[in-house]
Amino acid sequence: MNALPPVLETELAELLGDAWRTDPAERLTYAYDNSRREALPDAVALPTDAAQVLALVRTCRRHRVPVVARGRGTNTTGAAVPVAGGVAVSFERMNRILQIRPGDRCAVVEPGVLNGDLQAALRAHGLFWPPDPTSAGYCTIGGNLACNAGGPRAVKYGASRDNVLALTAVSGGGELIRCGSATTKGSTGYDLQRLLVGSEGTLALIVEATLRLVPLPPERRAVRAIYRDVASAAQAVARLMAQPVTPSMLEFMDHHAVRLARDVGGARLPADAGALLMIEADGDADTLPAALAALIRAAGGDGLVSLDAAEDETARAALWAARKALSPALRTLAPGKINEDVVVPVSRIPDLVEGVQRLADEFALPIVCFGHAGNGNLHVNLMYDPADDDQRARAQAAMARVFALAVALGGTLSGEHGIGLAKREFMPQAIDAPTLALMRAIKAQFDPDGILNPGKLLPP
Amino acid sequence: MNALPPVLETELAELLGDAWRTDPAERLTYAYDNSRREALPDAVALPTDAAQVLALVRTCRRHRVPVVARGRGTNTTGAAVPVAGGVAVSFERMNRILQIRPGDRCAVVEPGVLNGDLQAALRAHGLFWPPDPTSAGYCTIGGNLACNAGGPRAVKYGASRDNVLALTAVSGGGELIRCGSATTKGSTGYDLQRLLVGSEGTLALIVEATLRLVPLPPERRAVRAIYRDVASAAQAVARLMAQPVTPSMLEFMDHHAVRLARDVGGARLPADAGALLMIEADGDADTLPAALAALIRAAGGDGLVSLDAAEDETARAALWAARKALSPALRTLAPGKINEDVVVPVSRIPDLVEGVQRLADEFALPIVCFGHAGNGNLHVNLMYDPADDDQRARAQAAMARVFALAVALGGTLSGEHGIGLAKREFMPQAIDAPTLALMRAIKAQFDPDGILNPGKLLPP
Repeated sequence: MNALPPVLETELAELLGDAWRTDPAERLTYAYDNSRREALPDAVALPTDAAQVLALVRTCRRHRVPVVARGRGTNTTGAAVPVAGGVAVSFERMNRILQIRPGDRCAVVEPGVLNGDLQAALRAHGLFWPPDPTSAGYCTIGGNLACNAGGPRAVKYGASRDNVLALTAVSGGGELIRCGSATTKGSTGYDLQRLLVGSEGTLALIVEATLRLVPLPPERRAVRAIYRDVASAAQAVARLMAQPVTPSMLEFMDHHAVRLARDVGGARLPADAGALLMIEADGDADTLPAALAALIRAAGGDGLVSLDAAEDETARAALWAARKALSPALRTLAPGKINEDVVVPVSRIPDLVEGVQRLADEFALPIVCFGHAGNGNLHVNLMYDPADDDQRARAQAAMARVFALAVALGGTLSGEHGIGLAKREFMPQAIDAPTLALMRAIKAQFDPDGILNPGKLLPP
Repeated sequence: MNALPPVLETELAELLGDAWRTDPAERLTYAYDNSRREALPDAVALPTDAAQVLALVRTCRRHRVPVVARGRGTNTTGAAVPVAGGVAVSFERMNRILQIRPGDRCAVVEPGVLNGDLQAALRAHGLFWPPDPTSAGYCTIGGNLACNAGGPRAVKYGASRDNVLALTAVSGGGELIRCGSATTKGSTGYDLQRLLVGSEGTLALIVEATLRLVPLPPERRAVRAIYRDVASAAQAVARLMAQPVTPSMLEFMDHHAVRLARDVGGARLPADAGALLMIEADGDADTLPAALAALIRAAGGDGLVSLDAAEDETARAALWAARKALSPALRTLAPGKINEDVVVPVSRIPDLVEGVQRLADEFALPIVCFGHAGNGNLHVNLMYDPADDDQRARAQAAMARVFALAVALGGTLSGEHGIGLAKREFMPQAIDAPTLALMRAIKAQFDPDGILNPGKLLPP
């Protein structure tokens, strides 16, 4: 049973053949994302080329049927959940790497290519695409672009938006648009490709992406710096970001995260560890020692408890063990977790962590902060029991205050996860009314009938 | 005499006091830009704060009077020329550096700050803002943002759009909008700040910019590599861009440019020099030697005639002498010059230079190519006598073919100068109709009555 007009079903079944699915069991697979929200689409389309996507959007527009683009559903915001029903468009069959052009430092891909598969193909050419979300092995380039995915490497190499040169997309109006060119500079009209990045499928469906590539540094070295307290670690972050050698990763763990990794996760960390930084440099054998020395100098200073440098990949893995031990250890605090990725100016990290701890006390719920310190992009993990109505309500109320805090500190709601369903009600806190009105007006130009991913990103 | 409604004149004279100018001699100062086009504005406004800009735009909108934002008029496209009359808004009095925040690697500035003044202020903090157009000493940040200015450093550090975090602007609708935040990552709604960069004052007037800063490398070293021919130099460019050490500058001169610099400019260059690369690395004393060695390795190869490394700043200046000798020498070829800044994928540089030489032969006019090779962003200088009608017509026809060539090679019309008046008729060659239609639709949302810089960027 579904709510689609029969004539649309007939047209799309004919267009797509076996790539058109209406069986409820199959639709269920495309009903959720990693936000654990769920809503059944009325049908699923698995297009194989841009022409099918174009025909599909035109047909859906004619019938005012929602179209929800989908990578592999690893996002945490509900952005891929078809809350208004309609057609879920999964790009799993548009997964070809069309070109790798080392001399131009770019690759042309379909949106369904997995991030990890692209990186593997690029490795042979000594290149990589910077975005490296934790889910890299099983998330898609299209999904990365939709939410402007980042990851630890973004501190040196930028996030998705910083690493896209050109996009071909199908607008909600049913037009094929080509934005940008395969060049690293451009001043030819309005920059629509960066506008599409982070728009979560609400403006257009990306059918081809030309990505900016970066030469792969042959080596990397990790340093783990342990500090007495969060303030000392945050000051070290500011020092690290103010000197010329930009770290290739700069990850932060607050005192709760450190304690969890040590006491629950079994990581070998000293008892007086109040905060931790994982710092990496990359380069070649000629440049790496000097780069690492510069980072170690900047990491030093008041409040540093210990500093360990890894001499090889095995030692590096051992240092990262504390960070890896963290996620499983979190679950011992409570069965439920709200993980939001607010971002603040780097200098405000201490205020954010301190403010979050005040909220943890006020709402009597554990909150653990860790994440991409070099970008001021912290993952705030609010732990609660979803079966407990009172805890659930407190968790929601506390998270609303976390967002307000990030905005008050000159930051914003999301650094790399996006808005989706999870944060759209908070958008008016972060973005003032005239600017939001312009965003709505732009949405209406790309998608005049509002069929693309309705209910996401922009507040009701 | 001017065409403004008397009631608007009264309102704006009252709002702006001595910052409202209608004297013809004063207006003349704001009539032109470096494109040598000229059109008299009906009045000139010199606002001192955002509130004045807001009131001015609202008043002009009510009377449907054009508003043309202006930095210092150094742009080459006519983008600052008020071809439809109206009010020229010069930001020369909004020239304050509001904040320099080293820990956050950002600065907050008014649009009228000179690029060179900002760099001087940042130097004390060991920071810089990457865009470095030739006119840096006397062009404004607002102007840089309006045309997405780049410069030689863009190859490593990006152009204006890559180095803006947040903008406050007054839309053509007369609303104050705030886009982005002072953070290096963000995924909170549509990216309007990067959309405004390069929009040449057709969407909104920027009244405040939060700029991304980069730590200033303490040292730099230059290498001059001379090649037998353009193809060898272009292959070296591809090799240089494919290895991990990105040069901080990578400038190219074709054989005409080399010959001019040598025979007319007096630069010491060998007789068999067929093309030249100026290559720079930056860093500190620890990392620079290895970086330079990597670049020298990549510069080597088939066709290399000679390679000179500068050991100090004096030697560096001597190597750059050939490049500096070029611009004055160009004028000996012909009194008139059309300088366009097409961009192509790096691997297509040889095809561009070769194609341009075919056009030079076909149209019997000298064309000299040089520029930012690492971005594929070449300045194509077409020399002619403007007093000769036939030459002028041939120059225009040849330049149209240069644009067509750049687009055919997968590039586009402009890398860093923008479109303005000069290239807008070529926009349909570079951007297809549905995409152009969306650009127009977006323009209409920001500027419903079309008062902002009418006649620029978008084709008629």
